[in-house]
Amino acid sequence: MNRLKLGMLGGRQGAFIGGVHRIASRIDDRFELVAGALASDLERAAVSADELGIAADRSYANFDEMATAEAAQDDGIDAVSIVAPNHVHSGPIIAFLEAGINVICDKPLCASAEEANAIEAAVSVSKARFILTHNYNGYPLIRHAREMIARGDLGAIRAVQAEYVQDWLTETIEDSGQKQASWRTDPVRSGEGGAIGDIGTHAFNLLTFVTGLGAESLSADLHSFGTGRQVDDNAHIMLRLENGARGMLWASQVAVGRENGLRLRIYGEKGGLEWDQENPNRLTFTAFGEPTQTFTRGGAGVGDRAGDWTRIPPGHPEGYLEGFANLYSDAADVISGVSDGVLLPGIKAGLDGMWFIQACISSSQSNGTWIKRNSKS
Amino acid sequence: MNRLKLGMLGGRQGAFIGGVHRIASRIDDRFELVAGALASDLERAAVSADELGIAADRSYANFDEMATAEAAQDDGIDAVSIVAPNHVHSGPIIAFLEAGINVICDKPLCASAEEANAIEAAVSVSKARFILTHNYNGYPLIRHAREMIARGDLGAIRAVQAEYVQDWLTETIEDSGQKQASWRTDPVRSGEGGAIGDIGTHAFNLLTFVTGLGAESLSADLHSFGTGRQVDDNAHIMLRLENGARGMLWASQVAVGRENGLRLRIYGEKGGLEWDQENPNRLTFTAFGEPTQTFTRGGAGVGDRAGDWTRIPPGHPEGYLEGFANLYSDAADVISGVSDGVLLPGIKAGLDGMWFIQACISSSQSNGTWIKRNSKS
Amino acid sequence: MNRLKLGMLGGRQGAFIGGVHRIASRIDDRFELVAGALASDLERAAVSADELGIAADRSYANFDEMATAEAAQDDGIDAVSIVAPNHVHSGPIIAFLEAGINVICDKPLCASAEEANAIEAAVSVSKARFILTHNYNGYPLIRHAREMIARGDLGAIRAVQAEYVQDWLTETIEDSGQKQASWRTDPVRSGEGGAIGDIGTHAFNLLTFVTGLGAESLSADLHSFGTGRQVDDNAHIMLRLENGARGMLWASQVAVGRENGLRLRIYGEKGGLEWDQENPNRLTFTAFGEPTQTFTRGGAGVGDRAGDWTRIPPGHPEGYLEGFANLYSDAADVISGVSDGVLLPGIKAGLDGMWFIQACISSSQSNGTWIKRNSKS
Amino acid sequence: MNRLKLGMLGGRQGAFIGGVHRIASRIDDRFELVAGALASDLERAAVSADELGIAADRSYANFDEMATAEAAQDDGIDAVSIVAPNHVHSGPIIAFLEAGINVICDKPLCASAEEANAIEAAVSVSKARFILTHNYNGYPLIRHAREMIARGDLGAIRAVQAEYVQDWLTETIEDSGQKQASWRTDPVRSGEGGAIGDIGTHAFNLLTFVTGLGAESLSADLHSFGTGRQVDDNAHIMLRLENGARGMLWASQVAVGRENGLRLRIYGEKGGLEWDQENPNRLTFTAFGEPTQTFTRGGAGVGDRAGDWTRIPPGHPEGYLEGFANLYSDAADVISGVSDGVLLPGIKAGLDGMWFIQACISSSQSNGTWIKRNSKS
Repeated sequence: MNRLKLGMLGGRQGAFIGGVHRIASRIDDRFELVAGALASDLERAAVSADELGIAADRSYANFDEMATAEAAQDDGIDAVSIVAPNHVHSGPIIAFLEAGINVICDKPLCASAEEANAIEAAVSVSKARFILTHNYNGYPLIRHAREMIARGDLGAIRAVQAEYVQDWLTETIEDSGQKQASWRTDPVRSGEGGAIGDIGTHAFNLLTFVTGLGAESLSADLHSFGTGRQVDDNAHIMLRLENGARGMLWASQVAVGRENGLRLRIYGEKGGLEWDQENPNRLTFTAFGEPTQTFTRGGAGVGDRAGDWTRIPPGHPEGYLEGFANLYSDAADVISGVSDGVLLPGIKAGLDGMWFIQACISSSQSNGTWIKRNSKS
Repeated sequence: MNRLKLGMLGGRQGAFIGGVHRIASRIDDRFELVAGALASDLERAAVSADELGIAADRSYANFDEMATAEAAQDDGIDAVSIVAPNHVHSGPIIAFLEAGINVICDKPLCASAEEANAIEAAVSVSKARFILTHNYNGYPLIRHAREMIARGDLGAIRAVQAEYVQDWLTETIEDSGQKQASWRTDPVRSGEGGAIGDIGTHAFNLLTFVTGLGAESLSADLHSFGTGRQVDDNAHIMLRLENGARGMLWASQVAVGRENGLRLRIYGEKGGLEWDQENPNRLTFTAFGEPTQTFTRGGAGVGDRAGDWTRIPPGHPEGYLEGFANLYSDAADVISGVSDGVLLPGIKAGLDGMWFIQACISSSQSNGTWIKRNSKS
Repeated sequence: MNRLKLGMLGGRQGAFIGGVHRIASRIDDRFELVAGALASDLERAAVSADELGIAADRSYANFDEMATAEAAQDDGIDAVSIVAPNHVHSGPIIAFLEAGINVICDKPLCASAEEANAIEAAVSVSKARFILTHNYNGYPLIRHAREMIARGDLGAIRAVQAEYVQDWLTETIEDSGQKQASWRTDPVRSGEGGAIGDIGTHAFNLLTFVTGLGAESLSADLHSFGTGRQVDDNAHIMLRLENGARGMLWASQVAVGRENGLRLRIYGEKGGLEWDQENPNRLTFTAFGEPTQTFTRGGAGVGDRAGDWTRIPPGHPEGYLEGFANLYSDAADVISGVSDGVLLPGIKAGLDGMWFIQACISSSQSNGTWIKRNSKS
Repeated sequence: MNRLKLGMLGGRQGAFIGGVHRIASRIDDRFELVAGALASDLERAAVSADELGIAADRSYANFDEMATAEAAQDDGIDAVSIVAPNHVHSGPIIAFLEAGINVICDKPLCASAEEANAIEAAVSVSKARFILTHNYNGYPLIRHAREMIARGDLGAIRAVQAEYVQDWLTETIEDSGQKQASWRTDPVRSGEGGAIGDIGTHAFNLLTFVTGLGAESLSADLHSFGTGRQVDDNAHIMLRLENGARGMLWASQVAVGRENGLRLRIYGEKGGLEWDQENPNRLTFTAFGEPTQTFTRGGAGVGDRAGDWTRIPPGHPEGYLEGFANLYSDAADVISGVSDGVLLPGIKAGLDGMWFIQACISSSQSNGTWIKRNSKS
């Protein structure tokens, strides 16, 4: 067996998303965590490294040092996971790519358009791979939905309804210092987008991933219900897709009673699909004029490739972590050269997400003007 | 016992909505159908009248004759149900109101703004009552939701998601003469609105009924996916409500797999509510920070007034017809003078609906410009 | 139009099941209530009759008088609805049948085996029809399920799970005089069976109706959790059907959180079906090795006959009252001679139910001995 | 960090349950797989060991050799996972326990009563811990349900409905050599129980774990629908629990349309609980007379201990593997001496399961005689 060597930037013990990446990387046993710059404070970084079984001499003070040192080692890391806040994405991404180390970065891509451009440039010249963890498109039934649309089961897509809604920012908990709330509602650390950046980009990514369609333009109405909150916590968005389909996207962090309500509904001239992340092992499909069918993960009618992205029989639920693990396993395949990783989100998805955030803000500031997708990105 | 006398305009035997009104009027045994102008063709009207047990001398050639004759009788009708296509609403409404006969009219109010103004004028001077059958607000749990919001269980409303989606116009069946499709997609008979008029008005009415909030403005993106179709069959709408709440409304007749998917989700600063017409005997409520609760029709926690609008114990489902019957029973109470019918939709709801249709069309034609609710209506 | 004349035995204004029968008889406008012996107290009967629009001279003191008088009239009643407690079934049934008047009786058939035999004898010699309102088999999708099984969609039936569970007798409310609880837990008025008679018979009827299979034998474990309660409030039953299929049936009135949880699940060698009365407009079907399909009332794949038993389009829910109304409309067809009413439950279903009750009690008293269906009934 | 050393008996690369145990042991990073006797064929064992990163000198020919060698090493394994077919459980269990190595064994305990007795004796004298992976009781909401019942939220338990139903043995795929089907329907390798052993024991374990109640007696009706099948594929069982509660348990492998339908419903004098393994992140609870509440994994109202058994926020689903991983993490805590592992199933659960299998067979062979739980085991 030959586990790949993984490093981690950010994500000290106890951090939410760092822990998720670590579990995801372990589930299929394709990676071994051997290096890290886990915290900006060197001592805290060292403590976390030790707890995670990283050798002391591979716990680094910062990403530059880490990229340089690991690139210089014979058995240096094959990939690095970047799990720091958004404003600490672009520096590390560029440094590791330049060092020839594959990058697996949490979304959104970064905190500003300038950073995005710099990252895009670095990706275009690096021989290393850049992967952005829009993890929800790792769910097996999401990939099945994409395949169904690609092969024409729905015909031309007409209407798309996407939403990602939560309620954890119903009250202004950032005022009392709740850690996750503090940085995610701070434009400096999170970027200008609030709900649209944190979760709206996931919904937007998911709808483009599944439909295979990009946005042509959007019109947005962003609002912040939390008193004094500097970023949006509720976003209503109308979309026009590049084939003429119409869509709506709703992102909210004040929808009381919703936990991680990421739902996707897609309707074409021949069929319709519905999926809900909170019960992700089911996908319903209706061929026009036929009874609705329920596909289950790995179950009847889902096809042979399902086995590539699932570990256990249908009826035994897989969840968020297994979907996330699929990205890591795909990444391992790509790094090992056995796959081209066509399903893995990368710089294109990252730039789409950055456009989405900026377009939502521009549109909302101009009272709903339709903002076109710039041809460049 | 003292059943009220009911007449009917339109709705010959076999017509869909006429049959619905007749069942709704019968369920609680408060009305007796005794007169009608059931079809424009006199002979067909007479046949239907006979089948429905209406005496031959009370089967009329047209609404004018019927209004005049019934008003002149000692035991003339107490109310008339108008179940003709939209462009045949205003004439009969005005005639019966002028004759002092209570009017129960199917929605939307009428087919044009001019007609709406004329109806409004007639209502304002008539001593008879005008009722518009936005039947979905007859569902007991919808009324319970309204009460919960009115008494503050959700706090100030922030976000509202309403949708009414079907799939029966996925293909252009109007081209092959399907009767319901033909008039509902014909601007002359239906008015300028397609999906927005036929079902969007229901969703809009429902959200204003339940929240107690009017619209401040809206931005719409209407589209017609059916080739050659003259009215919208899919409508995406962003709303701003008069208290600053934001909303989305989706109406579609091309959403493959949906039958009568009227759903309402409302989120306030303290709680959230969700309801689905296809399983209307359940309403979920979440108080922020508490587990979600499921209320059932007539079940625990729904309160004493529930019994007014339901006939059988919780767990035995009531449906569309019973909700519709609640409007008829309320109407009977109003006509009998035992209630002021505060929950019954009337001219206000009708004008709101007409504004909604017009505003959607205006906004969409001007690429999403926000259209304000005019103060007048 | 020609409404049939209906009489009612029991069911004075305010009584639960009497009101249900009246609504069910009205929904499709095939019956007119013209006579009654609505209460044992003559004065109360007269008040109720007046409230219900029954002429004073057709409000009777008792069933004998009513049967005699109505049979003697030219326009006497075509049918009588018997909605009295179980111990007041056999007398009226026999009297009306002997008078040549069709009988529509609430379930269970009666309160003892002796009464059942007498009824069976009366039915066998009467030219009038006897109908027992096992109303749940009036639901359109239940009839569709029956048709699917009859035509072989499931292959030979193997396992059947039926349950009817409620929670309204969780506490011994009969001790404080709650009216429904008092007679339903009183062996004198209700018969020896508690939950098994009141709701178990419905579940048993439903499973035999849908599968087309009778019971070969059963083993039961009855229990009464309510302190001092004289009849069972929870029943666990194992079944063997006549084709070798195995089944379970659970009836309970102490299952906290269940309202009217009547569920049926049937599995054959080729397919499986599942249905839940609390959301009766859906039926799921799985052909072995295929994705599960969801049929909706009147929706795709349900077939042409669906229209016979439904009034409104799919997606608009019908409920308990409409299912009940289907029995009344079928009865009207039978009485009018336009149908043989093959789907209507009658004496066979009644005797099956009486056997079911007795067998459950016998088996439970002998610690679960399997009781065979006696060949006679 | 200090990962525990894990060995594995059975479970060569590609085996279903061995892979599950490996993932479960990795998720929380508490174990490192370092030794194995992965297959009876030494060469195949070696290949699998290599693929799994086990050093060649720790790939053993059989369990005896492995137990002896590992016990003799300074850094020998802390625990062994036994994932061989049932008839290869008792030998290894006893050998490893005697060698002082903790045992984590897949269920059921073994293939015969004699083996069970021998295991019990070995457990009683060993200082090592014996853990049986009834993995479903690792689900966080199952543990929450247990806690609710223990603290009295439901009052005294009255009725329990448990079921575990699948459809993968609908056809006799063992005849064509399907590997899983072959050994699971072979009494020699699987023991006398078919569905009751493979999945019925899980349902039985779950109901006793959650209620805290043992069985007093049971009555069973086992059947084999697959032609020529030597073990049961459908089992209907009535239960009496030690407090007087009544229960039903249904296990089936021929229920077309069900995948891993493990459901538990529990009703007490004050409340009721319902849970479904296929959507395990929800648990519904009804306090009598109150609306039903839905608890989510880690969500509102679930309490502080939830965090011990969950990794990600509510709304992000965890599944089967995470529930399984909870047993491994609990085991690590026990082995590390930081917990007494009170929630971990062990020899008691194993003996209960063996009794369950034997009692079902005895009862069914004697036509449903109630079999009492023998006091000894």
